[in-house]
Amino acid sequence: MTVVGSIAFDAVRTPFGERERMLGGAATHFALAASFFDTVHVVGPVGDDFTDEDLAVLATRGTDVSDVERVAGGKTFFWRGEYGWDLNTRETIDTQLNVFEQFQPKLSEASKAADVLFLANIQPELQLEVREQCTGARFVAMDSMNLWIEIARDALVKVIERVDCVILNDAELRQLTERPNVLTAAREVIGWGPSVVVAKQGGYGAALVTAEDFFNIPAFPMEDVIDPTGAGDTFAGGFVGYVARNVDRAIDRNVLRNAMAYGTAIASYNVEEFGVERVVRLRPEEIDARIEDLRALTHFEPSPLDLRTETPR
Amino acid sequence: MTVVGSIAFDAVRTPFGERERMLGGAATHFALAASFFDTVHVVGPVGDDFTDEDLAVLATRGTDVSDVERVAGGKTFFWRGEYGWDLNTRETIDTQLNVFEQFQPKLSEASKAADVLFLANIQPELQLEVREQCTGARFVAMDSMNLWIEIARDALVKVIERVDCVILNDAELRQLTERPNVLTAAREVIGWGPSVVVAKQGGYGAALVTAEDFFNIPAFPMEDVIDPTGAGDTFAGGFVGYVARNVDRAIDRNVLRNAMAYGTAIASYNVEEFGVERVVRLRPEEIDARIEDLRALTHFEPSPLDLRTETPR
Repeated sequence: MTVVGSIAFDAVRTPFGERERMLGGAATHFALAASFFDTVHVVGPVGDDFTDEDLAVLATRGTDVSDVERVAGGKTFFWRGEYGWDLNTRETIDTQLNVFEQFQPKLSEASKAADVLFLANIQPELQLEVREQCTGARFVAMDSMNLWIEIARDALVKVIERVDCVILNDAELRQLTERPNVLTAAREVIGWGPSVVVAKQGGYGAALVTAEDFFNIPAFPMEDVIDPTGAGDTFAGGFVGYVARNVDRAIDRNVLRNAMAYGTAIASYNVEEFGVERVVRLRPEEIDARIEDLRALTHFEPSPLDLRTETPR
Repeated sequence: MTVVGSIAFDAVRTPFGERERMLGGAATHFALAASFFDTVHVVGPVGDDFTDEDLAVLATRGTDVSDVERVAGGKTFFWRGEYGWDLNTRETIDTQLNVFEQFQPKLSEASKAADVLFLANIQPELQLEVREQCTGARFVAMDSMNLWIEIARDALVKVIERVDCVILNDAELRQLTERPNVLTAAREVIGWGPSVVVAKQGGYGAALVTAEDFFNIPAFPMEDVIDPTGAGDTFAGGFVGYVARNVDRAIDRNVLRNAMAYGTAIASYNVEEFGVERVVRLRPEEIDARIEDLRALTHFEPSPLDLRTETPR
């Protein structure tokens, strides 16, 4: 797998604590989740302030960091945000693009040769450039954000036309298509080219839409959510990672539904602690246990009754 | 079953149309759903403007309307609301309590003798009065709203302490308990007395919390939602109705999960048309079909992979 996207330092405050500088960014969270499934090649720029220790964390579970470009004299992308009391709202206090301002993705042969590609949320023009370099990719997924829908919609649609899977928040899907109904919005996007649309629903879970399937999975219920930062990218890493392991076989309904469950399971661990702290030391057996829990909390055996039709008198 | 609550005329505008005066109210929507399961006794006031035709609709599938009190010289409760473009927001334009201002619930012996009682959203003091009259009730469920949490919290908590099941929106659960986390909020409410809490999640579905179980069911995905008015009360009618049919046996995990599915299924039909228009002519086999669809769209068979633990080099 190859992922292109941000590698960042985040400053985060939630009602449960804060961190002044922690490793973050979409590509980082994606890679830490996807590395459970296969080798991930990370493409993205960092600055002089990015230490070997940071790089070692990114390389967890065999992730290839040789396409992480260290820009001499540059500073790593920085984001500062603060969450509201129920973690459902967050405010961006500061964004410093730094080395991202001049970023031109350079992919090694190994990164270009990937079977599976994830275009994390960056400028659509750069996403398209990377997508065109990965000529052999058999499954390409992407994320984006409201900013690009607002200021670069045409470029964004061009990228969408060239991918297999779009992963967006449901509000972004509505905004992108100007369709108030998420199912209608997802089907419109499928009409543009992709075969799979995932509508992320924040703390509620996520929905999967294909031409012939619909699947919904709730977020794993937890009392102790500490920091939601990176949950969406961690979900994407689990989802795309599971698909990547099945890309030689058919990516059928069962694979996609399991991918939704793996994304949800790993993301639920991500929010237990700040940044990548939890997923770095996550164990496969913990993921498997949560998959079983997710199945248990969504499962029901229909026990039909004789329902009344008319006034029984 | 007995339900006490509002019987109303609603004026509703959604992006898909409007109605100037349609039969509505919490008790109405509840009864139309619950009547599939057993006889419902409706307790609530109406005015002179409530016609025999309206009463006949309320009596669909054998609902007993003899405790519907027609107040001479009074006008039926009236609500006017308008929904935003994605139906996720709604604005109340007008509320006229009318006959509800002086309402004192008077229960016939048949209504008092019910095994199952639903206290729809009315003033907590009235809910408590009705609850105390139904001394033989074996399963009592209730709804409420933000207004009572704000101006009558103590009375509301007293009602909650005397019921088996609380059905609230997740935002209301947070507000009631001042707990930002819905699971924590639900468990706090269970500590007050009820054994079952249902957190309604609007267009996302609903979650069931008991001392030993958690279950989540999504809303049924539909492209053509016309009018969400009454969806929550229709859900409650399906949920409580299913429980009512099982009240002689154990109300166990399987019963409660099926109840969630039946509530969801009938509510999904309710929103297909304005007011009660769809549920009045709903057929049992349509409900059964939707139950199967709900099972299909939430089901997955875990297909575990060997996940990587460490750097494989």
